[in-house]
Amino acid sequence: MTKIPEIGGEQALIKHINKSISINKEEVILGIGDDAAVTKAPKDKNLVFTTDMLVEDVHFSLDFYTPEQIGKKAVVANISDIASMGAIPKHMLISLAIPKDITVEFIDGLYKGIMSETDKYNINIIGGNMTGSPSEAIIINIVIAGEVDKEIRRSGAEEEDIILVTGDLGASGAGLYFLQNNTNISKESGSILKKIHINPQHCLKESQILKKLNCITSMDDISDGLATETREICEASNVGAIIYKQKIPTSKATEELLRSIKKDTKETALYGGEDYELLFTTKKENEKIIIDTLKKQTGTSVTTIGKITKEKSIYLIDEEGKKQELKKTGYDHFKQNPFDFKKRDIL
Amino acid sequence: MTKIPEIGGEQALIKHINKSISINKEEVILGIGDDAAVTKAPKDKNLVFTTDMLVEDVHFSLDFYTPEQIGKKAVVANISDIASMGAIPKHMLISLAIPKDITVEFIDGLYKGIMSETDKYNINIIGGNMTGSPSEAIIINIVIAGEVDKEIRRSGAEEEDIILVTGDLGASGAGLYFLQNNTNISKESGSILKKIHINPQHCLKESQILKKLNCITSMDDISDGLATETREICEASNVGAIIYKQKIPTSKATEELLRSIKKDTKETALYGGEDYELLFTTKKENEKIIIDTLKKQTGTSVTTIGKITKEKSIYLIDEEGKKQELKKTGYDHFKQNPFDFKKRDIL
Repeated sequence: MTKIPEIGGEQALIKHINKSISINKEEVILGIGDDAAVTKAPKDKNLVFTTDMLVEDVHFSLDFYTPEQIGKKAVVANISDIASMGAIPKHMLISLAIPKDITVEFIDGLYKGIMSETDKYNINIIGGNMTGSPSEAIIINIVIAGEVDKEIRRSGAEEEDIILVTGDLGASGAGLYFLQNNTNISKESGSILKKIHINPQHCLKESQILKKLNCITSMDDISDGLATETREICEASNVGAIIYKQKIPTSKATEELLRSIKKDTKETALYGGEDYELLFTTKKENEKIIIDTLKKQTGTSVTTIGKITKEKSIYLIDEEGKKQELKKTGYDHFKQNPFDFKKRDIL
Repeated sequence: MTKIPEIGGEQALIKHINKSISINKEEVILGIGDDAAVTKAPKDKNLVFTTDMLVEDVHFSLDFYTPEQIGKKAVVANISDIASMGAIPKHMLISLAIPKDITVEFIDGLYKGIMSETDKYNINIIGGNMTGSPSEAIIINIVIAGEVDKEIRRSGAEEEDIILVTGDLGASGAGLYFLQNNTNISKESGSILKKIHINPQHCLKESQILKKLNCITSMDDISDGLATETREICEASNVGAIIYKQKIPTSKATEELLRSIKKDTKETALYGGEDYELLFTTKKENEKIIIDTLKKQTGTSVTTIGKITKEKSIYLIDEEGKKQELKKTGYDHFKQNPFDFKKRDIL
């Protein structure tokens, strides 16, 4: 293991990282190495910007993640935000605060994880910043700039629109619970859940297909749980919603874990987080083509889970048809500690 | 003092901040409130991006700074990078990691400082991210996206070009030393130095004037000391330089402090940091018009401190004409602690 001063310090480390970064010279005029980067502006398209900060022991723990997995997760969270606008990611800036005694191998792993995504989706790493961390904690801030012709907003949902989600929900929350508590479930389910929590996937490909279908009225990525994201769409669109609880898609592994701790599977889908699936609305007439096209082109399943209402409340309808208003619970950094996940309401 | 949960938690705090943010609707299509922001792309101009992370007890200390001063300093450091490219700042994204027990008043102060600059220079705050801090430390990451027709790079310096700087150097380092050691100097000088360290100024206006003069061959902002920045220009341009030590501009207050601790004033200018002045090169024939125009239009003084050489070393010539190679010392987050400033080589 090599400490940073051994290779010559901060500047040497930056040079070492930059060696492995490749950029598209058609898009980037001046990459890393000056006070700022310069890129071409897209023609006839708008710019899209998102940022996300990941903090050790808040968003990830070195007990569960390798450096590579941390790097990848940080990028996935940001790509997911770009995807939820129907936009394409183009350029990335990375800021790191790292403890002094961190190894070059750790940084290499982190960048390997970051570049596994940037290389796959042709995102140019054009800037960065490296500083000492105030504590032992690692902090990663990522910004992605992308482009879009017409963005899909949260605010376009209309009465009678149907509400759909990609994939299944709650597995990331269940995976974190399993990692922390080593619950007694089948080895196979445990390993599926762990993988989903540690190695999350965004839906950039799916969002591009949805964008092309040109019929999505609103969209969000599910980073903070289905309940929070549904509320965000409803508030922005000035409407309400009905969600059919039994229609919320959850995997067998998630169900097995939640059953083993005698909790409601659908609640972890509603109030868990980091699923990075897409939540979106459309007119009823588009349901079939959306489901068929996504299945055919990506293999991703899409499920209709509810509909938009004029009345502004959000109701959950259970299997017996009983209607209850959705709880306002959502993740709050100033109230909860996510690594006290088991102390959350739902589990 | 109001704690964040008292106003309703993270989401309420974000809404509270957003109320005071104003954006230019001609430029911003969709501001804060969705998964990503959308802006118009500049026509016939390129995009410029920079990012900078400020960490409590590395870049600032609550012993010396008010929240407002921290916010302003974070923005100034980023504007300074955009200025050094000859570019114009347009949009800003802010990520904060803050301890749970921070007050709403603290956050208000921080944003007041940030907005004192964004309002003045018409920069749109289009995005942000707020998370809990792993320690008691506050971490601020800022990204600025700007625009430029043709950027001024580090790499354009040529043999025989003269080297110039705006303002005077070393006062920020001297100010930090004064804050930490309460050195016995005149009250007036102490107060000048403190103010310069705590309330730094960028040279955006100066850089725009230099850009219009259309004769600057290379430019850097002096964030890490004159020695480091000169080296960066020389390495990028594949040239060397001669710096006349006695010509390095330093203020009377800086000189008074350094004299009182029996140290060389010019060394704090060379190896100190955070002056945020501009270092640039041009042909000898442009010297007069540059100095006159900047003085006339901004009141800022410009000093010629040396020249570019074909030989790739960087030499310092002292008052007796003695030539010595410039030390490679620069600030390194993995070797030094800036708040152990007094332990640096130079003081």
